[in-house]
Amino acid sequence: MANDPTLKTVDSMEAVWEAFRPELLEVEAQIQKHLDSHATLINTVADHILSSGGKRIRPLLLILSARLFGYLEKDYLLLGSLIEFIHTATLLHDDVLDDADVRRGEKTARRIWGNHASILVGDYLYSQAMALIASFHNHDINEIMADACRKMAEGEILQLCANSQPDLTEDAYLKIVEYKTATLVAASCKVGAIVGGASLEEQMALYRFGFNLGMAFQLADDLLDYSADHARLGKSLGQDIRQGMITLPLIHLLQTCFPSEQAWLKEKVLSHSVDDQELERILDMMRKQGSLAYATSRAREFIETAALDLIAFPESPAKRSLAIVSCYMVNRDQ
Amino acid sequence: MANDPTLKTVDSMEAVWEAFRPELLEVEAQIQKHLDSHATLINTVADHILSSGGKRIRPLLLILSARLFGYLEKDYLLLGSLIEFIHTATLLHDDVLDDADVRRGEKTARRIWGNHASILVGDYLYSQAMALIASFHNHDINEIMADACRKMAEGEILQLCANSQPDLTEDAYLKIVEYKTATLVAASCKVGAIVGGASLEEQMALYRFGFNLGMAFQLADDLLDYSADHARLGKSLGQDIRQGMITLPLIHLLQTCFPSEQAWLKEKVLSHSVDDQELERILDMMRKQGSLAYATSRAREFIETAALDLIAFPESPAKRSLAIVSCYMVNRDQ
Repeated sequence: MANDPTLKTVDSMEAVWEAFRPELLEVEAQIQKHLDSHATLINTVADHILSSGGKRIRPLLLILSARLFGYLEKDYLLLGSLIEFIHTATLLHDDVLDDADVRRGEKTARRIWGNHASILVGDYLYSQAMALIASFHNHDINEIMADACRKMAEGEILQLCANSQPDLTEDAYLKIVEYKTATLVAASCKVGAIVGGASLEEQMALYRFGFNLGMAFQLADDLLDYSADHARLGKSLGQDIRQGMITLPLIHLLQTCFPSEQAWLKEKVLSHSVDDQELERILDMMRKQGSLAYATSRAREFIETAALDLIAFPESPAKRSLAIVSCYMVNRDQ
Repeated sequence: MANDPTLKTVDSMEAVWEAFRPELLEVEAQIQKHLDSHATLINTVADHILSSGGKRIRPLLLILSARLFGYLEKDYLLLGSLIEFIHTATLLHDDVLDDADVRRGEKTARRIWGNHASILVGDYLYSQAMALIASFHNHDINEIMADACRKMAEGEILQLCANSQPDLTEDAYLKIVEYKTATLVAASCKVGAIVGGASLEEQMALYRFGFNLGMAFQLADDLLDYSADHARLGKSLGQDIRQGMITLPLIHLLQTCFPSEQAWLKEKVLSHSVDDQELERILDMMRKQGSLAYATSRAREFIETAALDLIAFPESPAKRSLAIVSCYMVNRDQ
């Protein structure tokens, strides 16, 4: 694969993309190769969402985790594509569940081909991934990936049950984040470690690294919905609270504000009706109570914990890249 | 497990259920044991559909296929439960796709808990099954089951694409039946053969047996929608054509009727509007053209082909039971 980039050149996310471009291109090639169903609708719908500008963060983490331990055989890059299939399957189902019309600036698959096609192509991508993963004949990889998928489904249901529940605790919220997001990121890193030839202990370190990174990523993503920076980019804020979705800034605010404010907030969460003026009031309350700062610091803690699991490894372009990807994942503004 | 029933006593479907009751009860126990999610909504929704009177035909076929070769270790009965999980996952998604309000005489899960819960609990049951299957550490079983799941998803999409297409050929219809139904029945039998200790050749024989049985089962099931016997039970006929779903009797009729009748039929398929009088006319045409007899004979051919793959095995209660189950599966009237 690619010549090893020197430490010097890998100093930004762009440099990471550039340094591992050959591997990422192979992941793309494998994605296309395995969209080969008899049912052309599958290939069309899957290609639409898979080609819509996803960052391939999970395949990249798999590649970097493998390269942390050594050479990555080309055959194993298929696993990166399959993790992207699984991630994409969840996006297809999510868009149906959220009645979403737009994703990454384009019409969603459900908007173009309908909910039926989105549900079924999601089912297909997931089962195609599991079938191809099974063909590697590696029990550890089978179990990690199947467990991640089970937890993701469970996380989505926990989130559904938590909807419009203003008494949701921080622990319950973190459990949802763990299941819905962190487990697949952790699995990507651990599978990379396995195919890179890591020891059991090293595999566990990479799993924990990915887990904490995934937690931080989701917390940061949830923060964007209340972020002034985000508003500056023309994104509309407060989508989550308007859908009854309760995330960390709101949990903090509900727990720290005055009782009268709390009653008003609960009413807003239950009614799903928050106009722009009310949203401004909520953002003011969050600033006053430090709710945004609190959620930011929790995300930072997860990133710092993640970094601890990399300390023991010798310096390398892969290690440096993993650190850069960590920063990137919690500082995205889109 | 159960004492081996004697050949004499296994002479009806009731006798088969009775003879293998201990194994089937263990399958039930394992179903309940593995509905153990943190998300109680999963357990509630899954229990609703899993307890609604399904016949456990696929677990039974797994049990019988294993017993054809010898003793069936209790641990392997979990696989029967997991096949039922996978089957149930498809039913949950099907009910969403069909906007179905009733299944087996009871309200569907989507009617009670909504489409969101049905989609997600389906995802969960499927991934829970794949995770527990992986824990058996048997590559053959992993691959057979993952392949069956992929084909089922593909079959559902082929069916979606074939909807309201009056030019659907018999071959294309049979491919849908193969993917949607026959593959999971075949997998149930083959997995049974594997855990029963069958040779590779024997495993293939059981796969073919299940495959042909599954084909016959779906053809017979599709026939019910045009069957006078079915109408006598108070079931409403013609649901398929009213939803634009084209099955074998209609394909035969479209290919053999007069051009003027064909044009009218195509218009009915495309418009999804068939009143009772028009349905009566279609049924008359089918009787006149022998379309029902044709579909019946095709189903019978699959059953006869299935039987050929059992001939080589010595007589046993399991073999006799497999033959009885074959008859039962194509002669159900509910």
